[in-house]
Amino acid sequence: MKIAIAQLNPIIGDIDKNADHIYKAAQIAVERKAQLLLTPELSLCGYPPKDLVLNNSFVDSLWTKLEQLAKKIPEKLSVLVGIVTKNTHAYIEGEKPLFNSIVLIENQGIKQIFHKRLLPTYDVFDEDRYFEPGKESNFFQLSFHDPNTKPIKIGVTVCEDLWNDEEFWGKRNYENNPIKDLVKCGVNLVVNLSASPYSIGKQKVRESMLKHSAERYKIPIIYTNQVGGNDDLIFDGNSFSVSRKGEISLRVKGFQTAIETIDYDPNDQDLKTSYIANSIETEEEEIWSALVLGLKDYAHKCGFSKAILGLSGGIDSSLVAAISAEALGKENVLGILMPSPYSSSHSISDAEALVNNLGINSYTLPIKDVMTAYDSLLEPLFKETEFGVAEENLQSRIRGNLLMAVANKFGHLLLSTGNKSEMAVGYCTLYGDMNGGLAVISDVPKTRVFSLCKWLNRYQEVIPHNVIIKPPSAELKPEQVDQDSLPSYDILDAILDRLIHRHQSIKEIEAAGFDRDIICKVVKLVTRAEFKRKQAPPGLKVSDRAFGTGWRMPIASRWKLD
Amino acid sequence: MKIAIAQLNPIIGDIDKNADHIYKAAQIAVERKAQLLLTPELSLCGYPPKDLVLNNSFVDSLWTKLEQLAKKIPEKLSVLVGIVTKNTHAYIEGEKPLFNSIVLIENQGIKQIFHKRLLPTYDVFDEDRYFEPGKESNFFQLSFHDPNTKPIKIGVTVCEDLWNDEEFWGKRNYENNPIKDLVKCGVNLVVNLSASPYSIGKQKVRESMLKHSAERYKIPIIYTNQVGGNDDLIFDGNSFSVSRKGEISLRVKGFQTAIETIDYDPNDQDLKTSYIANSIETEEEEIWSALVLGLKDYAHKCGFSKAILGLSGGIDSSLVAAISAEALGKENVLGILMPSPYSSSHSISDAEALVNNLGINSYTLPIKDVMTAYDSLLEPLFKETEFGVAEENLQSRIRGNLLMAVANKFGHLLLSTGNKSEMAVGYCTLYGDMNGGLAVISDVPKTRVFSLCKWLNRYQEVIPHNVIIKPPSAELKPEQVDQDSLPSYDILDAILDRLIHRHQSIKEIEAAGFDRDIICKVVKLVTRAEFKRKQAPPGLKVSDRAFGTGWRMPIASRWKLD
Repeated sequence: MKIAIAQLNPIIGDIDKNADHIYKAAQIAVERKAQLLLTPELSLCGYPPKDLVLNNSFVDSLWTKLEQLAKKIPEKLSVLVGIVTKNTHAYIEGEKPLFNSIVLIENQGIKQIFHKRLLPTYDVFDEDRYFEPGKESNFFQLSFHDPNTKPIKIGVTVCEDLWNDEEFWGKRNYENNPIKDLVKCGVNLVVNLSASPYSIGKQKVRESMLKHSAERYKIPIIYTNQVGGNDDLIFDGNSFSVSRKGEISLRVKGFQTAIETIDYDPNDQDLKTSYIANSIETEEEEIWSALVLGLKDYAHKCGFSKAILGLSGGIDSSLVAAISAEALGKENVLGILMPSPYSSSHSISDAEALVNNLGINSYTLPIKDVMTAYDSLLEPLFKETEFGVAEENLQSRIRGNLLMAVANKFGHLLLSTGNKSEMAVGYCTLYGDMNGGLAVISDVPKTRVFSLCKWLNRYQEVIPHNVIIKPPSAELKPEQVDQDSLPSYDILDAILDRLIHRHQSIKEIEAAGFDRDIICKVVKLVTRAEFKRKQAPPGLKVSDRAFGTGWRMPIASRWKLD
Repeated sequence: MKIAIAQLNPIIGDIDKNADHIYKAAQIAVERKAQLLLTPELSLCGYPPKDLVLNNSFVDSLWTKLEQLAKKIPEKLSVLVGIVTKNTHAYIEGEKPLFNSIVLIENQGIKQIFHKRLLPTYDVFDEDRYFEPGKESNFFQLSFHDPNTKPIKIGVTVCEDLWNDEEFWGKRNYENNPIKDLVKCGVNLVVNLSASPYSIGKQKVRESMLKHSAERYKIPIIYTNQVGGNDDLIFDGNSFSVSRKGEISLRVKGFQTAIETIDYDPNDQDLKTSYIANSIETEEEEIWSALVLGLKDYAHKCGFSKAILGLSGGIDSSLVAAISAEALGKENVLGILMPSPYSSSHSISDAEALVNNLGINSYTLPIKDVMTAYDSLLEPLFKETEFGVAEENLQSRIRGNLLMAVANKFGHLLLSTGNKSEMAVGYCTLYGDMNGGLAVISDVPKTRVFSLCKWLNRYQEVIPHNVIIKPPSAELKPEQVDQDSLPSYDILDAILDRLIHRHQSIKEIEAAGFDRDIICKVVKLVTRAEFKRKQAPPGLKVSDRAFGTGWRMPIASRWKLD
């Protein structure tokens, strides 16, 4: 029996288009003689639909569209579609009014509904906000063409439902374990419809985890994941299957839409080995693919074909320029050079070299006269004060204004280019270099920015050599370099990793060999920069804890970590 | 038996100071001969602590401080303190690792722990993200001085625990109902420790709801609420009690810290009537009190004593100036007038009249020369284009830069002055007039801005008369008025109310008598402005659905409401 896996890239809320993608996948599945088509979690509305589901008419229109879609699906194909459904008992039982569901379309009608049981409510996930957990796990039966072969029982799970193997995690994450319940029901195969966002190394975890479960329960598993960028989240696809012996039997290429098929052999009661795409080898290539996809989808799904960014000659803007050239096409990227009297000569020549290497468009807007106009206007107020943060920020904000003016004038998407280390310690200017519709590398620490640029240069120079070797500088006052006010980036990033990703205390970080004064300084900077992060553009998430929807910190707070 | 209610204003995470406030309240309670002191939900860390609770050391330091505090509490006083505690069974049972708890301090030790059972996870609330619900409701006993009187059984509930009376709501919000369980245990009194944020008319709902429950279960209830502003949330206090007949027996004055006492009479098995503060009469007075408190606390808890804002001569900035003068003192408010060639003469004279009425400081920075500098710089790029949004925004962004420059230079808090109607339809400039550390009236619709100003002028002119009567205008091009691009504000606000607060569809709004084209235009504007709201400063919440932490919408989405 052939099963098709559709790794789809939905647009949140674009129900017509998403339905069309499912329909087209169904046609291909039939051409390839598949009996069953799997689509990702919430494939009809896209994941995450967020507060759109609070609109009754949104949920109603999903159901209407599902019924229309069902009637168009070829009769012999069964399809699993992800959709939000209503919980009719909510007000009687005191439950949430919706379910995160999978609907089985069969014979052009709606045959069966399955509800997601384990609802992630941590990091970027808010599923308890909307959904009631399903009370039981269920399966459906699918008959073979050969009437002598016993029908196969297929257990249905949704994303998180399979993330509770206490042997694998060394702890229980939820009370229930759907795969255990399905095995008790005697299912022959478990399918998992997912919308699991990318983070570095996550595919390895998914494969190890499902290999473990497949082996443990002696059951093959097919994992179908959403692909594409939705705001800050990047879904990497990387759908795959595991045989009952815990071996990978299918791996769909990541970071792109795809339809693949796999055979279930009733004699072996297992999946036959199918197409196995190579795993991505380096973390750099993985992150690069994620950022390119994330930027491309954010731009296109918001209706932009062209992007603009400021080019300082520094490594962050150089990397973002390279990502945008790859994502949108070099002809659709406009880099603006905005030298000031404090800019070094290499800041211009390095930016020009980058423009040449990438073949993008560029334009130069020297900011000196605008600076002078502000200075003259503010002079009576500022005359007895020293040059400081106000003046430094002003330069950054002049640049931010110019970029927005050009972006507004020509309908370009402005990209902000700050990295995660800067965002963490607030080494960035609100309403200045933080301006943009999307923060492309705001979840990439500075040390990783360097490694990405070196990786990018592995065959030929993309990022000019001098950009990589010169000391980072904001160039907002004469002779300024980042390390005047920050610890070296390898130390800073190591401390930030412990603070942000591992939730460590100052004592724990100190015990790991870092200087207490430096740690305390970093902690103070991170806490103080909360108000900046609150107003940052959405940033593409590649780590397991990004400053975005999954980072929820109070601003007016005074906790002293120790 | 005397019971003291401490309506406290904690600083999130400032455990030392919060403990000190509880200790001082305990001393006063003893002076007033109270046997029991009630403090709000999470009184030791402040509500909401958000992701701070993900740090182990945060939770540990809370417990350490609680033990220190317990030893200082006078021996004869029992105290209920709100605190985060660990769920030691979490990893075995697959539960969340923390509880939102109330600890009973008695005889200078920790006597008993109660866990919150109903965890709000909607709007601004994320409690399922952090906490495991308590499995049962519990009470403690308190003995009277007279050994012949039977000890009183006091049932403990936390905030949401009492928000599930299915008779009152006409539906069940949660499966369990703690008050029902407590009544079965035979308790004589129910106490509720809350951190319930303000919204318009909410106190009426709280009182009606608890009157209903008290009458239904024939049990007196004491409700103790947190007071003070924490980022976007304003807690109004308004602690109160209800007798078993459903009558208000105590009402603490709202929007300020307070300690009040009430007597429980063992013969009547009821609370004796105590101090009953007047209810606030008008919604305008209520909103005004909330905004003043919210601004004052945001500024002070972030370490600012002075605020700055742009004065356009318009009604929004005038109202915000009045609020800040009240909150911070007129001498601590600096208004900046930034006329452009498009500014009308009245924009300056009206702003000056406001400055006089309020007695605040002001300074004028005409932006013409800075505009010219930008125009000259951009001329080669823009020369074949028409004056449009880019140029309009640029003026707003020049003003935004000037305000930030002055704010940075002198360490003032910049207040943004946009109202909710503008924020909804995107009639505001990102990195321009949206700049600020706090958006004071971003949850106040334009029609309400007018009614607040009229209310403010009830005894004497605070907001200049001309500011109230002239047609609203952004003055970003000649002769511009808001109604060039927007429907009249009474229609706009009515449509927005139905869209945002009542989740209505276009069809439903049309059925209520509004023009379909206008509704569609408004819907489109609201959807398109999502990217602006994403980068807005925190805004003080006064409605039941504000654009802030409780508004979680996708940006790159394409749902068409119908």
